[in-house]
Parts: sequence; structure tokens; C-alpha cells
Amino acid sequence: MDPIGTIYSPFKTLDNMPIQPKGASEIIGSVVVDQKYQEGLADLDGFSHIYLIYHFHRAQRIELKVIPFMDKVYRGIFSTRSPLRPNHIGLSIVELVKIEERELTVKGVDILDETPLLDIKPYIDAFDLVEQSSSGWVTAGSGAVAAKRSDSRFVS
Amino acid sequence: MDPIGTIYSPFKTLDNMPIQPKGASEIIGSVVVDQKYQEGLADLDGFSHIYLIYHFHRAQRIELKVIPFMDKVYRGIFSTRSPLRPNHIGLSIVELVKIEERELTVKGVDILDETPLLDIKPYIDAFDLVEQSSSGWVTAGSGAVAAKRSDSRFVS
Repeated sequence: MDPIGTIYSPFKTLDNMPIQPKGASEIIGSVVVDQKYQEGLADLDGFSHIYLIYHFHRAQRIELKVIPFMDKVYRGIFSTRSPLRPNHIGLSIVELVKIEERELTVKGVDILDETPLLDIKPYIDAFDLVEQSSSGWVTAGSGAVAAKRSDSRFVS
Repeated sequence: MDPIGTIYSPFKTLDNMPIQPKGASEIIGSVVVDQKYQEGLADLDGFSHIYLIYHFHRAQRIELKVIPFMDKVYRGIFSTRSPLRPNHIGLSIVELVKIEERELTVKGVDILDETPLLDIKPYIDAFDLVEQSSSGWVTAGSGAVAAKRSDSRFVS
């Protein structure tokens, strides 16, 4: 699996970065897709939101239990969005502001600067909207997502 | 990037498979996570929905423009969910029915049998719910998602 481009953001380190797009709703970033894949961006400009799938490139190890930013106790890694998961795959839903040639301007970026991009998918309401859900251990603290900031626990 | 498990479903071929979880809402499948990662499943059982990230293992080539199942004209690959994208990464949101040891029973499976699993993430309402969105070229035909079935165009 090779990167198809790079994600740029104002966040050079994990300290104080928003932990999710909802905490970064005004943060603008850009996504530059490699020239050889530019043709694949056709028709994407009609979508208001996109999934970015990327490599947590600063995650140097795997942990099966972590204390997430939203909690104070250890949780199974697959019940969290921590970078320390096997395969170090990240997923964010961001707002698509505009596309110019092979550069996308996106909003709601909770991603480190220079993160390698693996895939872009359109967010499709008819496929992706979950009308009712329960969010396990997160539910209690979820009101605090927007204000929550990360620290370096997952890279150091 | 190595598989962390395997997704099992009733679909042995792409012919006639639902094209998205919403078209497969009653289809039960299972996800078996490798034993060495079982500990990472702790706490996941409180979530009603999960993201499965997987390898479109039957996709043998990359195309930058495809005619999607939902349309009749060529569209840029990144504006579709077609398997022929670079890196062949698939993403589905499925309902989590139960977890027994390292086997998850899931509902809403639009995935081929024996698909290699790359990651599991919890669907977290506070992070992932998109209240208003526009879905570009899909909008016109999206009412038909549930009834739409695939064919072998992306593997043959």
C-alpha cells in the first residue's frame, strides 16, 4: 500500500491538536493528490463531505489497550480511534471546500501535517447516515469532544 | 499492512451482491479477528455500529474512471466507492450484533466472503454524524441504493 498524496494541516505536533474533526470544525487543511491520480478526482466536487483514510505515520508502536483522550481507563484499541491500532490506519470525515486541479481544500482537519494519504471516498448520505446508534464508553463524555485536545501520549 | 482478521459473508462472488450496507440490512456476516489481537476487542460491545476497513482482495487493477453501479457514465474513482481505487481499501459501516471471544456477528454486510480485514473502528455519533450533506452525482439515484445489486464489472 503506497500513499496517493499528502495531507497538510496547521498541526506540526500532537500536542494540543483537536482529537476529532468535530473539534476542528474551523480548521482548514489541504490534501494534495499525486499527479498520476489526479484524473480520479473528477466529480468529487459535488460532495460536501469526504472520508480521508490515512496512515498514522507518527505512531511507532501497537498497543491493544490504551487510555483514550476521552477517558481515564484502559479501553480495547478497536473501541477507540487511537493511532496505536494494528496497521495504524486513520479515518476522518472532513468538509470539502473546493478542489483546484489536484489540491483539495478541506475543513475540520484533526490530522497531523504531512500525513500520508491512502484513500479518499465520498461521504454518501444514502449509504453512510446512521440514524440511531449507541456509542459505548464514549457516550458519557461525548459532549466534550469539541473542546478536547490531544497530547503526545500516542507518539512518545 | 497485514490483515488482522477475516470477514465472512454469504457472498461468494460479486454477482448480485448488495452494493452497500443499506442494501444488505438483513444480511448477517461474521468477522474473526486474529487471536493475537483479541484483547483489542475489549469494550467494543457497547457500540451499535462499527466501521470495517478491509482489502478489496478481488480487485486486480486500478482504474481512475469507472461506471459505478449507481450510474451510467464514467466518474472519477475517488467520487465512487468502487474497489478499483488505488490501494483497494474498502469501508463499510455495519451493525454490531454481538461479540463472542474473537468473533463478531455483524449485520448489513455488503462484503465478499473471506475478505481480509485491516481495521475495526467504533462508529461514534459525536464524531461521525453528518447532519447535512450533499452527495454529488449520487443524489439523483440514491433512492435506489437498497435495491441495487452488483455485478462482476470490477473483478473481471
